[in-house]
Amino acid sequence: MTQRTEQGTHLTGPVLVLGAGLLGASIGLGLRARGLDVVLSDSSPSTEAVARDIGAGRLLADARAAGERVSPELVVVATPPDVTARVAAEALLAYPDAVVVDICSVKEAVLRELLATPGAAAHASRYVGTHPMAGREKSGPVAARAELFTGAPWVLCAHAGSAPEAVLRAESLAVDLGAVPARMSVEEHDEAVALISHLPQVVSSLVASRLQDSPAHALSLAGNGLRDVTRIAASDPRLWVQILSANAGRLVEILYGVRDDLNRLIGTLEDPTAGGARLDMAQLMSEGNSGQARVPGKHGTPPNSFARLTVLVDDVPGQIAKLLTEIGHTGINVEDFRLEHSPGREVGLAELSVLPGRRQELTESLTRRGWKVVQ
Amino acid sequence: MTQRTEQGTHLTGPVLVLGAGLLGASIGLGLRARGLDVVLSDSSPSTEAVARDIGAGRLLADARAAGERVSPELVVVATPPDVTARVAAEALLAYPDAVVVDICSVKEAVLRELLATPGAAAHASRYVGTHPMAGREKSGPVAARAELFTGAPWVLCAHAGSAPEAVLRAESLAVDLGAVPARMSVEEHDEAVALISHLPQVVSSLVASRLQDSPAHALSLAGNGLRDVTRIAASDPRLWVQILSANAGRLVEILYGVRDDLNRLIGTLEDPTAGGARLDMAQLMSEGNSGQARVPGKHGTPPNSFARLTVLVDDVPGQIAKLLTEIGHTGINVEDFRLEHSPGREVGLAELSVLPGRRQELTESLTRRGWKVVQ
Repeated sequence: MTQRTEQGTHLTGPVLVLGAGLLGASIGLGLRARGLDVVLSDSSPSTEAVARDIGAGRLLADARAAGERVSPELVVVATPPDVTARVAAEALLAYPDAVVVDICSVKEAVLRELLATPGAAAHASRYVGTHPMAGREKSGPVAARAELFTGAPWVLCAHAGSAPEAVLRAESLAVDLGAVPARMSVEEHDEAVALISHLPQVVSSLVASRLQDSPAHALSLAGNGLRDVTRIAASDPRLWVQILSANAGRLVEILYGVRDDLNRLIGTLEDPTAGGARLDMAQLMSEGNSGQARVPGKHGTPPNSFARLTVLVDDVPGQIAKLLTEIGHTGINVEDFRLEHSPGREVGLAELSVLPGRRQELTESLTRRGWKVVQ
Repeated sequence: MTQRTEQGTHLTGPVLVLGAGLLGASIGLGLRARGLDVVLSDSSPSTEAVARDIGAGRLLADARAAGERVSPELVVVATPPDVTARVAAEALLAYPDAVVVDICSVKEAVLRELLATPGAAAHASRYVGTHPMAGREKSGPVAARAELFTGAPWVLCAHAGSAPEAVLRAESLAVDLGAVPARMSVEEHDEAVALISHLPQVVSSLVASRLQDSPAHALSLAGNGLRDVTRIAASDPRLWVQILSANAGRLVEILYGVRDDLNRLIGTLEDPTAGGARLDMAQLMSEGNSGQARVPGKHGTPPNSFARLTVLVDDVPGQIAKLLTEIGHTGINVEDFRLEHSPGREVGLAELSVLPGRRQELTESLTRRGWKVVQ
């Protein structure tokens, strides 16, 4: 039976999730944790079985076999991009009382295909395209977690014909999973992700591909710079081919600009002592500084909003616990904590982030207690 | 008075450090922590005063004013790349009993210029080019720390005329600062850093520069992918112009390959439904996968040598300390620890890295103690 959301803010279920990979199973886990009835389906029987086994929901196939007629208030299409529009169109027809959302990472191509699907356009008022800005380098339901969306932006792209009620229900999904809803048009969304997601992805892959045949002694010198730049090059090619194809026009416009800058840099490096060469290089680096300074920190906090200090920790069991117990005694909240140590070495570095106003106080307090604060 | 190293393994000092920025001051701090006499000099009076004040060494200017004739066993040239060869040549002439090393991040250009400096070539047996693979996004002596080099590779590039004794003394510097010496030729070094350091730097800057004029709503969606790819775009343009100029020939060869791949990708994205377009994209992504898999983990450990698990932590004071105390009770060593939480949210995620064989045991142990292990 279809149920309306209470004051438009919370889902009451049932929710049907089509596609039980990382995102679909994470949505199932998150909604199950709120006590909602979640029904799952995936084209792969083993994927949907794993999703059921980890507690992401019960299976649509089982419900049907038991003669139940599932009537969801919300259908979440969490399939690969290529089939998203088709599955969403089918869901609009199959569940005439449900709101249908998809969570595909490109939005205009999906909407266009959906509206062009015979029979679906008449039902499109119940459709809202969405995109949770969350993911992992791992895929599949095994990697799913209920908390995947906590604190992350969740874009809602209502189209001209979306019913306000449908948009509210889509927003409830985001809110119920702990995400922060952000409304924008499909065009705004696709331009934004071309820049902040698809550009870094292809550039990371371009850099990493250069490493394929490099000598081992070169790679043994690699530091955090290379590690960070190439981390997302580990992403799934099958998924990314679909994403890049669906947003090709917007990404290529950005890549023209990258190519212009790259050609300018190559020209400069071919004759590094020429007049103006150093100025050209300095300008590229400075433009990079300016752009980098605009990237928000974790959880949408402004860049560099926390102050860091580093504490030396002997690499013996219990030392980290002792440090954190004593930080607890100071009453100062640690916003981020990172421990680094080399296996076999005697000392580790604990990096603590605190509000800038508390840094000095924490440094003094820890120093008094005998800790070596190195920075 | 010049002192020989004991069995060629440890420095005994004095050590003269020319250039008191991040690296010079860190070397001073590290050697002072071993009890060595460190003498500092910098072309900027305020820089050398700060370095002295943080305990990185005493000042050459003060020693000279007191009538002392400083006679170092080792001179470390830690100046910007542009003046490294000149300063090293002067040091070889000024301190005829000292071994002279530099720590510049390009090696062939420095060696070539040094050997071409009138009078210096005759003393070049006492010169060894080196490069510690350590640094920070911050610069200046204020950011210095004695532990900067701990566990990091330190490349030693002996040239054809370097005396074995000089190489041993350079190696002692690396070892005394906790680094791991790696011997290679200037050519091998410069090719390696073009690939693992200069390439990611310029590409990070190219991506970040695209963000300069982007709308704020786009940047508000940014995730860890963009953050990681653009982090090093915050680096100092003045320093990097010198580095890029000095290794321009090797870097540009790599960038030709990047340009070829970028052009292929642009062609594919211009006509994403053409035959072979998807295969082209998949190939780029797969090549990125292969290259990324070759990047070693932190501290030179093989990629993915640790297993991770994530624990939910209530955001109240003392919870992290409690978690780490209880992990201490399990006797399982945590190799890396990272806490993430959103300001204002009720829950944080603590990510723990352990040896893969201990993951299951730790998960079960923490679950028994009432912790929610989500992965």
